[in-house]
Amino acid sequence: MTKEMIADRSTAFAESEGSTLDDTDAALAERLFSEIARRSADTLGVSRPAWSAKETEILDFLTEEARAEGLVVTADALDNRIFCLPEDAEATPYTLIGSHVDSVPVGGNYDGLAGVIAGLCCLIHQRRAGRRFARPVRVIAMRGEESAWFGPCYMASKALTGTMTDEELEATHKGDGRSLADHMRDLGIDIAPIEDGTELLPLSEIGEYLELHIEQGPLLVRERKPAAVVTGIRGNLRLKEVRAIGEPGHSGAVPREFRHDPVMATAQLLTRLDSLWAEEVKKGTDLVMTSGVMSTDPKHHAMARIPDQLTFSFEIRSQDPDTLERFEAILHDEISRISALTGVRFELPRPIRNAPAQLDRVVQSGLLASMEAIGQARYSMPSGGGHDAAIFANSGVPAGMVFVRSQGGSHNPDESMAVDDLMAATSILLNYVTRDATT
Amino acid sequence: MTKEMIADRSTAFAESEGSTLDDTDAALAERLFSEIARRSADTLGVSRPAWSAKETEILDFLTEEARAEGLVVTADALDNRIFCLPEDAEATPYTLIGSHVDSVPVGGNYDGLAGVIAGLCCLIHQRRAGRRFARPVRVIAMRGEESAWFGPCYMASKALTGTMTDEELEATHKGDGRSLADHMRDLGIDIAPIEDGTELLPLSEIGEYLELHIEQGPLLVRERKPAAVVTGIRGNLRLKEVRAIGEPGHSGAVPREFRHDPVMATAQLLTRLDSLWAEEVKKGTDLVMTSGVMSTDPKHHAMARIPDQLTFSFEIRSQDPDTLERFEAILHDEISRISALTGVRFELPRPIRNAPAQLDRVVQSGLLASMEAIGQARYSMPSGGGHDAAIFANSGVPAGMVFVRSQGGSHNPDESMAVDDLMAATSILLNYVTRDATT
Repeated sequence: MTKEMIADRSTAFAESEGSTLDDTDAALAERLFSEIARRSADTLGVSRPAWSAKETEILDFLTEEARAEGLVVTADALDNRIFCLPEDAEATPYTLIGSHVDSVPVGGNYDGLAGVIAGLCCLIHQRRAGRRFARPVRVIAMRGEESAWFGPCYMASKALTGTMTDEELEATHKGDGRSLADHMRDLGIDIAPIEDGTELLPLSEIGEYLELHIEQGPLLVRERKPAAVVTGIRGNLRLKEVRAIGEPGHSGAVPREFRHDPVMATAQLLTRLDSLWAEEVKKGTDLVMTSGVMSTDPKHHAMARIPDQLTFSFEIRSQDPDTLERFEAILHDEISRISALTGVRFELPRPIRNAPAQLDRVVQSGLLASMEAIGQARYSMPSGGGHDAAIFANSGVPAGMVFVRSQGGSHNPDESMAVDDLMAATSILLNYVTRDATT
Repeated sequence: MTKEMIADRSTAFAESEGSTLDDTDAALAERLFSEIARRSADTLGVSRPAWSAKETEILDFLTEEARAEGLVVTADALDNRIFCLPEDAEATPYTLIGSHVDSVPVGGNYDGLAGVIAGLCCLIHQRRAGRRFARPVRVIAMRGEESAWFGPCYMASKALTGTMTDEELEATHKGDGRSLADHMRDLGIDIAPIEDGTELLPLSEIGEYLELHIEQGPLLVRERKPAAVVTGIRGNLRLKEVRAIGEPGHSGAVPREFRHDPVMATAQLLTRLDSLWAEEVKKGTDLVMTSGVMSTDPKHHAMARIPDQLTFSFEIRSQDPDTLERFEAILHDEISRISALTGVRFELPRPIRNAPAQLDRVVQSGLLASMEAIGQARYSMPSGGGHDAAIFANSGVPAGMVFVRSQGGSHNPDESMAVDDLMAATSILLNYVTRDATT
């Protein structure tokens, strides 16, 4: 599907109604969530490791369920699973609805899985009703999206779009230290085409990429809305391990003027950046900042010792590439200033950069029109988290996203999404891909 | 020895010369340091665990060396070793010169051991010369002073003075998790009298307690002086593990105004306390402040997650009990203020308090007079580190200390002390205990 076709369709919304989901779909979604939670239960929440046999087990389960409903299921070169109505099995171009089945360790059941089940609900709803989509639709359940296991994120969509780097393939699993490539090989995946940057999924056949995901922040809860259309996906700059290096000393015996204390210097740095961040937010800049991992050296630290070093992660995210660049420069300036003041040196790792993704304006306006068509007020917001959609968007596939309200954030066992909210959000997708079926 | 006797003696310095050390003593010290370093070598520096068989091995070695020189050596109820000239074996009151043989893990060879060897050099020098002291002198080589192994510090002097608490006896070893009492029992030590608070060393028989120690800060290096007389020992307030508790969230998806980030809140707290500290130092207040151990929770932290909590140690030290009290109140005020601003809660552990110790003014002036008598300019300074001397002083024994210059601080393998400096500092002690021998 070309951009023009999508634009045409958006003007056709007034003429046709499209499908909406019902209680049967909600019951199906409930059952799938609970079956999959049971199959991936951890001590708390769920664990579905990226590129694992557990992932395969979940994909196999979804495959069986889909086949029982009369869907066609195929596996791609990564053993992701692709689902569609039998009549759409060969048709191109197609709308791809996707998300991932892996989770973070001790995570929640909805991050990723909600999008897969939303797509399957659309297919099964149409299949049961004996109806087709306005255009061919495929649903993809992807593996490995979470960075928690190997470091790199969006691994499946990167490999599918031929944009995975050698460095990412060599990233090592945090548990067993073996590489991503080795873990892929364990699943029978051929690494050579990934190394060669081959498009494993021919992108020219994909008219648009749609993804539903739980909102990972608190805005929908606060706004009392079940769903939103996403405007864009924040990019990020990540420094995995900044090392503040000072001078160790006896905590009682070194006067203040002789100290080069990395904890105090880092506290100053973060306090200063936090206050610059507050100013930016006041001016309306899209920016968030986090130091999620921080530690003195367990081998040498002690209560009675000025620590020799403090390591910490540092991440900023913004929808605006200029803001990322500007704040990276500010970080370097502040580090120089505080180093000069404190005598503490900051060693920076090679930055990891993920570009912001602009979601397609035409797809966005189509999704907003669908929201309205099914009785929801138009509401849109940026995505703070990164998603596979960013990879497709940055590879030239027009992409759109729908968020569903979720309590308790994401990446933790407290994630909690009402299935009614999922139905409300999925109905936007379903309306969007069925709305011009009769035109 | 009563305070009056010491006061009398200080007026007698002009009348007698006292002994000084020579090259033979320096050679002896060198040999003992190097033998003991060899016996306690770790991958870097030395490790002489508190209340260990390694400590016993070092004490046995010193015992053999001392006996070979004709000294009398006995073991006390803690299997510390007490050394003296044969003619002083039964005499009371006596001057006790002491320090400890344990070290921190991967520590330096001089913290503690320098004081023991200084005392032995005094005894052996007099023995070889066939001379006596002005008054009976005993040297004690103590076990377990370092807090790095179990948490409590000055364990031997606390047990000797009957001031060890049950909580300290139950403190657990950081490596094997077994209690201090159990480790003491392994060495054949009877715990009952320690629990009962019995004075294991009758304090009324001790006229004064003297301790030589490496300076653990940089002042003597900066002042280009080999030694100093210590005026007092800083007390401290220690919070072993403060827990800043915020609200976890997705690092990209939670806007600034919804965050309760414990890392950012702690950075603000420490930055504020650091700036109040700077003001106090400007006003001449004796105060140091350290957060030596800091960590997000390794089980839950991630680069892309607003951390749920940050734990950190917090310690302040001062010679002035009022300053400690005042700054503790400031800490509580700032925590309340920053909690209200950030929504981050700070859970404080039960504080550990070690009172500052005033070293005896008469002993101090005697030691300063000896400095001058052997050709060093009078120089005195406070001790930032705590020492066994504080326990004796706070138990009513007049106490004095001499510092020796040390490069590289203490509690690390880079500790480095010139034996010439040790001889200069030990000569102050030797002069002090021999100076009025003829009066």
